[in-house]
Amino acid sequence: MRGAVLYGPRDVRFEERDIPKIINPTDAVIRISAACVCGSDLWPYRGIQPVTQPTPMGHEYCGIVEEVGSEVKSVKPGQFVIGSFFASDNTCPTCQIGYQSSCQHRELVGGAQAPLLRVPLADGTLVATPNIPSEDLIPSLLTLSDVMGTGWFAADAANVEPGSTVAVVGDGAVGLLGILSAKQMGAARIIAMSRHETRQKLALEFGATEIVNERGEKGVGRIKELTNGIGADSVLECVGTQESMMQAISSTRPGGYIGYVGVPHGVELDGEQLFFAHVHLHGGPAPVRRYLPGLIELVWNRKINPGKVFDLTLPMDQTAQGYRAMDERRAIKSLLYPKAA
Amino acid sequence: MRGAVLYGPRDVRFEERDIPKIINPTDAVIRISAACVCGSDLWPYRGIQPVTQPTPMGHEYCGIVEEVGSEVKSVKPGQFVIGSFFASDNTCPTCQIGYQSSCQHRELVGGAQAPLLRVPLADGTLVATPNIPSEDLIPSLLTLSDVMGTGWFAADAANVEPGSTVAVVGDGAVGLLGILSAKQMGAARIIAMSRHETRQKLALEFGATEIVNERGEKGVGRIKELTNGIGADSVLECVGTQESMMQAISSTRPGGYIGYVGVPHGVELDGEQLFFAHVHLHGGPAPVRRYLPGLIELVWNRKINPGKVFDLTLPMDQTAQGYRAMDERRAIKSLLYPKAA
Repeated sequence: MRGAVLYGPRDVRFEERDIPKIINPTDAVIRISAACVCGSDLWPYRGIQPVTQPTPMGHEYCGIVEEVGSEVKSVKPGQFVIGSFFASDNTCPTCQIGYQSSCQHRELVGGAQAPLLRVPLADGTLVATPNIPSEDLIPSLLTLSDVMGTGWFAADAANVEPGSTVAVVGDGAVGLLGILSAKQMGAARIIAMSRHETRQKLALEFGATEIVNERGEKGVGRIKELTNGIGADSVLECVGTQESMMQAISSTRPGGYIGYVGVPHGVELDGEQLFFAHVHLHGGPAPVRRYLPGLIELVWNRKINPGKVFDLTLPMDQTAQGYRAMDERRAIKSLLYPKAA
Repeated sequence: MRGAVLYGPRDVRFEERDIPKIINPTDAVIRISAACVCGSDLWPYRGIQPVTQPTPMGHEYCGIVEEVGSEVKSVKPGQFVIGSFFASDNTCPTCQIGYQSSCQHRELVGGAQAPLLRVPLADGTLVATPNIPSEDLIPSLLTLSDVMGTGWFAADAANVEPGSTVAVVGDGAVGLLGILSAKQMGAARIIAMSRHETRQKLALEFGATEIVNERGEKGVGRIKELTNGIGADSVLECVGTQESMMQAISSTRPGGYIGYVGVPHGVELDGEQLFFAHVHLHGGPAPVRRYLPGLIELVWNRKINPGKVFDLTLPMDQTAQGYRAMDERRAIKSLLYPKAA
């Protein structure tokens, strides 16, 4: 089969790869219905995170179970399933608490930008939909594998409650779905920080009530103006840079909450500054598995349509173009379909 | 009158000072019943935090109202009152949310190691006891001004709940009262990290169920051994150094909570490390005012006896000895009584 492989900065190739097979009795192999490019893939794509060897890409996936190992009990061939980028056993003490992305036996899933994918720990990782979904639901179901679950975790970690005033730092797909999540959780006001017209439009569609164009100190000043001078109750940090993190901390009221889900790159927090900011800080890799059943239900019943973040659709052999468009911010998120066999 | 003044590293003098007067109509002047030395005073005492000018010391206080400004309504002369080290109006949006130590009009209170003290924003800051307390209650009531309120905030910020497994980093007075607080909040297990016999004894008396002697990586290893390999649900960081903060983060389970109340000195947090630790982080200067009514009730009804942290009692003119004993860790906390007039 052919799949996407990253060789180095801005060098994505679609080339022959080994067909994934069951290795452990707890594995499953699934036939990918759709995959996509993640914002976090842009760190190695841009060379900020070094690539030491050719790396099969893609960790957001959904599809039909092709084969399962001898110990797999909860999913079976023919089912449509979604899983997280971190495979988890869903039984260890950390999973039981709901932090499956810190599972004691977690494994990274990789290589989903291809027609077939091996998923370890299938019983603890994959969740089946009620039936085979109609075509139009597939983009939204795909987002539950990472980007939507991550936006949801950002809002959850930021303690969004009915009536909350929320600010969102970052207008990528995660930030936009953080807005959708905050809306679902009952936020009264959602302030989106964005300078891009198409993203502002989608932010408003997902539930943003205000847009702040400014960044840095000016952006913080605008948030304060809009929030009684004290800052937002909940701030979602969906970028992962020093600037975005400081913007989030400064935009939060004393006693307020920051949910941070952008993988931090070169971020250093000054202890004393954080102390006197008086904020709550929580984040990390989203425990997508915890949220999958509830989010599948919301998509299945057409209560939410997170698939709207995909504004570029490509056949999988053009994956490199999907990366390029996101790198140049021409696309919010690229959806990839395998070619008909 | 004479009061304690810090001139520089290890140079505390008891000398003539101006008698405090009402300056603003919202002020009160109180006659100190008892004061004490705070662990945070040791930072400037040791020269780690520079002293640029002679500084009247002491910010933990209780006593009898002597005089009030014309706008003060909630307390009156003759009442026994307790207040926080941060004066607050208790009406601004931040106070209303319960973060009075970040009040938009907050002022530091200082100079309590003296017979008289001016307290700004008296209505928002001072809380009166039901009556004049008996002598034996005064040490415990005094702790509510800072050290007990800070220990309580550490446990509250660390989300201690009935059944929680708690670890406490730091065996100073704040750490010990964090143990007492966690016990009150219903923690099932409280692991005290301490290497000092007298402090271990008091920790056990306050409710610790286990003692860990080791520090750093070894200490973290012991906590993990005691907690199913994953770490504690709640960790109270009551020191404020890089070592203690890292020890706290590494001792917390994924999804667990750290309440940090030691004023950070030179602490830098690596964003990526914090992200993958998956912890909740909350701390800052304790909003003592929020807790005062409830804690006064607990002390008044003799449900708790936080005054036990005082293991050295001195007349106020020997304040310098109180500092020295704490600096050399011969005393946990020094209680100071003004001399009979």
